Amino acid sequence: MNQERGEIPEKDVVIIGVGLIGGSVAAAVRQRFPLCRITGIGRSLERLQEAARRDLLHRCDTRVTADSVPPGSLVVVCLPVDQIGDQIRQIAAVCDDQTTITDAGSVKASLYSELQSLGRSVPQYVGAHPIAGGEKTGFEFAQADLFTDRVCVITPETASPSHVARVTQFWKSLGSNVCVMTADQHDRVLAYTSHLPHVLAAVAADSVTPEKLGFTGSGFRDTTRIAAGSAELWTRILLGNHQHAGAAIAQAQQRLAEYAAAVRNQDETALRNLLSRASEVRRRLKESAETPEA
Amino acid sequence: MNQERGEIPEKDVVIIGVGLIGGSVAAAVRQRFPLCRITGIGRSLERLQEAARRDLLHRCDTRVTADSVPPGSLVVVCLPVDQIGDQIRQIAAVCDDQTTITDAGSVKASLYSELQSLGRSVPQYVGAHPIAGGEKTGFEFAQADLFTDRVCVITPETASPSHVARVTQFWKSLGSNVCVMTADQHDRVLAYTSHLPHVLAAVAADSVTPEKLGFTGSGFRDTTRIAAGSAELWTRILLGNHQHAGAAIAQAQQRLAEYAAAVRNQDETALRNLLSRASEVRRRLKESAETPEA
Repeated sequence: MNQERGEIPEKDVVIIGVGLIGGSVAAAVRQRFPLCRITGIGRSLERLQEAARRDLLHRCDTRVTADSVPPGSLVVVCLPVDQIGDQIRQIAAVCDDQTTITDAGSVKASLYSELQSLGRSVPQYVGAHPIAGGEKTGFEFAQADLFTDRVCVITPETASPSHVARVTQFWKSLGSNVCVMTADQHDRVLAYTSHLPHVLAAVAADSVTPEKLGFTGSGFRDTTRIAAGSAELWTRILLGNHQHAGAAIAQAQQRLAEYAAAVRNQDETALRNLLSRASEVRRRLKESAETPEA
Repeated sequence: MNQERGEIPEKDVVIIGVGLIGGSVAAAVRQRFPLCRITGIGRSLERLQEAARRDLLHRCDTRVTADSVPPGSLVVVCLPVDQIGDQIRQIAAVCDDQTTITDAGSVKASLYSELQSLGRSVPQYVGAHPIAGGEKTGFEFAQADLFTDRVCVITPETASPSHVARVTQFWKSLGSNVCVMTADQHDRVLAYTSHLPHVLAAVAADSVTPEKLGFTGSGFRDTTRIAAGSAELWTRILLGNHQHAGAAIAQAQQRLAEYAAAVRNQDETALRNLLSRASEVRRRLKESAETPEA
């Protein structure tokens, strides 16, 4: 993807929410579009000024205004999923029609419903979900290459083609492999690849009482790592994708019942088949170049 | 634990099965008992000779005999759980009564039943389970500090006190925090801390079809990492502990049903409570000094 570096020299990138993801967008933009002006918008001026001191931002503001969002900006909303819709509406109310809006949210269909339900179609908004991140929070952990060689899903829906092209080019220029889907397709896939694993990790964590914690090893630590994430954030994600997440959980219940039966009946063949299938999936991932092991 | 280094200078340590665990026992013994002679016993003489070339072993053999197991040895059986019982019987048949036998298996009660069912009580055998390991296999990945600051469960059962003391001291001298339990207690705890996480990781892996694998991120990778393990080995472990593993799976089915209901009913409070509880458990582990993050 490096050949595309700098091909679309964005003049103004505005990042709303400067945490791990927003900070990494800032770091990547600085590296790839050195002449681009980066504005950070957030709740805490102090935190934004600290991000500016670390050379992630050129300007910062605590409000979305015609001044903080210059004409023709590319705006990247990097907020928790339940705050994105409201923020998009605020931006659309103050920006010119050359401004393009994208985001990094992990649930999409409910966001479009929210925008529609308020009678406000936003043709400038092009949904995006870079499948990247980590357990750490805060721009202190920002990495310029967080999106490099990672998949970024783009959900054009009703956006106008010029905005879709711009957002596609933007994420490509940050090193991502862009994949276009409908919001519904995105949510269905992520229910299995991200939302269900979180629920299963949480079930595994919640199955161990405090007095047993000392008897856990590296397997438990890895399996449950993501369960330490914010309960508030994950409540929003699972409710924002309740239909597909519900279907994924129901499928997992079916699988877990198969394990329960195989263990209860001491059915060696059934158990070996179940474990072999899972092992093959996981080994295929290991061999896949798209997702190198950290 | 370092103060105990070298306090009991074993003269002969015999390791049966020189893979990641057996190789790490060898490396740790070399470091802590430099005068001890280490014998490796395994199926492939070629592999054993390679381990000897890497300075893990002084002698090697493919058979358990009065010669390969010198009088007064400490024998550590580092084989898959379904081969341990048979091996213990073979050792007991050739060794003197000053020889002590231990192992590193992750299931205990079924092993004792197996020994009893053949009418052969082995007072020299003291079960052990060092809760350490990794996804890699083979002595090439052996680490002298694999057991350092890790819990090692000892299950004395019917072993005579002098052998129990020797095995306890041995694992302590490798840096482990020794914890004494009955075989049944061990298996009940491990069902929740190790066997259930493996099943849940396998369910998570098996929920993602090949065409969705490209849309997985680091969360999925971590949650499912252990699912790549040997289906054969884990079939043995789960069947060897079918009662406790079955109970743990049943409890997880109940929890997963609670998540399913909360998502289906869009019950924000219930979902937040479930996720908060899991998050608290996992954060407590993070803060625990016994299990430092890798």
